[in-house]
Amino acid sequence: MTAAALGEFGRIARYFAPLAGPGGLALKDDAALVECRPGYRLVVTVDQAVEGVHFLTGDPPDLVAKKLLRRNLSDLAAMGATPLHYLLTTALPQSCGDDWVRRFAAGLAQDQQHYGVRLIGGDSTSTVGPVALTLTAIGEVPGGAEIRRSGARPGDDVWVSGTIGDASLGLKILRSGGDGLTTLASAHREALMGRFRLPEPRTELGPRLAGIAHAMIDVSDGLVADLGHLCENSGCAATIDLPALPLSAAAAAFVGANWAAWLDLATSGDDYELLFAAPSEARTVIKAIAGELAMRVTAIGVMTAGQGVRLRGEDGRDVPVTRAGWRHF
Amino acid sequence: MTAAALGEFGRIARYFAPLAGPGGLALKDDAALVECRPGYRLVVTVDQAVEGVHFLTGDPPDLVAKKLLRRNLSDLAAMGATPLHYLLTTALPQSCGDDWVRRFAAGLAQDQQHYGVRLIGGDSTSTVGPVALTLTAIGEVPGGAEIRRSGARPGDDVWVSGTIGDASLGLKILRSGGDGLTTLASAHREALMGRFRLPEPRTELGPRLAGIAHAMIDVSDGLVADLGHLCENSGCAATIDLPALPLSAAAAAFVGANWAAWLDLATSGDDYELLFAAPSEARTVIKAIAGELAMRVTAIGVMTAGQGVRLRGEDGRDVPVTRAGWRHF
Repeated sequence: MTAAALGEFGRIARYFAPLAGPGGLALKDDAALVECRPGYRLVVTVDQAVEGVHFLTGDPPDLVAKKLLRRNLSDLAAMGATPLHYLLTTALPQSCGDDWVRRFAAGLAQDQQHYGVRLIGGDSTSTVGPVALTLTAIGEVPGGAEIRRSGARPGDDVWVSGTIGDASLGLKILRSGGDGLTTLASAHREALMGRFRLPEPRTELGPRLAGIAHAMIDVSDGLVADLGHLCENSGCAATIDLPALPLSAAAAAFVGANWAAWLDLATSGDDYELLFAAPSEARTVIKAIAGELAMRVTAIGVMTAGQGVRLRGEDGRDVPVTRAGWRHF
Repeated sequence: MTAAALGEFGRIARYFAPLAGPGGLALKDDAALVECRPGYRLVVTVDQAVEGVHFLTGDPPDLVAKKLLRRNLSDLAAMGATPLHYLLTTALPQSCGDDWVRRFAAGLAQDQQHYGVRLIGGDSTSTVGPVALTLTAIGEVPGGAEIRRSGARPGDDVWVSGTIGDASLGLKILRSGGDGLTTLASAHREALMGRFRLPEPRTELGPRLAGIAHAMIDVSDGLVADLGHLCENSGCAATIDLPALPLSAAAAAFVGANWAAWLDLATSGDDYELLFAAPSEARTVIKAIAGELAMRVTAIGVMTAGQGVRLRGEDGRDVPVTRAGWRHF
């Protein structure tokens, strides 16, 4: 079969139309219809995945699809929203044959099932450049229950879900074998690479924190950088205890007591964990929610007056932050 | 100033944040909030503009921005929706400096004012490829008043707004001077090029046709191709009278009585007019709406049983259609 044997309409009919939810009108209309339940608001976000920037040429298309979807679901979760629908655009070079598209759509199909979301629209085009994809995700939140970045107050605890820094270590292994990472047990190496390849957005935790968290953001640029965004939007500061950072067994085995390496984990991207500020009275309920969801949620510091993010080392002294996070530019 | 002197966050703050509507949360949060009025549905669509496919490298950035926005607004209009918000993604090569972004955003600012829409979110990244842009547009429609492609019935009149084929002639002039177009008056040439550069989506007409039109689509692939989509979705056929096609003075001066040239206009893209089917009882009200909006709306044929699009020439005989429309692939 040649590169674009099915053509644009053929690919839509064969691979994408089966993914369509009711509002998608079988992908046969000019636009999608989205209902909003009385008392709810919709929450909308969009992210890109560009070959050579967000993923590599040889990456499995199903993982590319899932990661793009999950990054968007993480943004919705960070607002406390439950995901519902998404729209997709693809700009594909001739080198992307039907098989690439088939595998890409298969990844979406699996994640649609897993997260309970459906495709409702999109657009496809050819390009002379790298593969360029965008995904617009739509979720819902009870009106007023959305969790913004701007609501944190001095005295709030700072919490983070899951573990931090795994994806960055996984990327190091994938890129170069990873200095110092070669001595890790292969199960640890696999775990770290897995976290980079396929984030797990906290779609269940996010909505549960409505009415509890004062402010929330997802960790995509790096914990310190994203906490910085939350501080800036909330008009306050934060102090984090570096030793309180939740690490996976694999990451802990790698960093040991090397605090410079801990700092690296706190300033690396792609975690897709939820970072939030909540009043100390909420500790019990947050722990209970974490227990119900069988998920780690860790208090790592406190919001304070002022501005910026301070890190404290194991001796209680400030750790200078040399790199706030990761940027595309 | 160097190419990306402001950086990603600087560009967002300087050029895009001023465009943000209330639901956009100053472009400082993980996602946008979209309200939906009781009794309404939201209508969502997304389109791309890729350098080398949808526009040329030297095209003025403000026009690139406006055309992308307007193509999306045309899709909303084709559903009978009133536009409200949009999200934007940009994948820009290093060669796109801050000035390109400034001019791009200036185009959006003008059209936001003109169409009453506001930016509420987006994403920006670098790319090693051509400029790749997407725009997700969100509108509203009273629940049940949306106009689909699938509601046309045999006996309905087929109508089209504005004039057909101008954009394709404008493109010919821009590309090559245009065979046979060189003899046109310069005002005509300007008018045709203007129609290609900057479509005028029928955002006022679309919502006015709710409850009147049985089915609607916007003409982007070409009148015959798009009418074909409408027929396919409605499970019926259409017959169009080629001499009834509404032409601008400029297009009429070019085609004269050359029916092959008329056919070209009916099978060319980028018109962004509204093509709709409505029962014959609606003729008076459609004419009245057109009068109120000071807009040409022309009956060009009829829906019939069967499938496919037939074209009738001035002698009433069938005109064979050799090229249904324009495709990206």
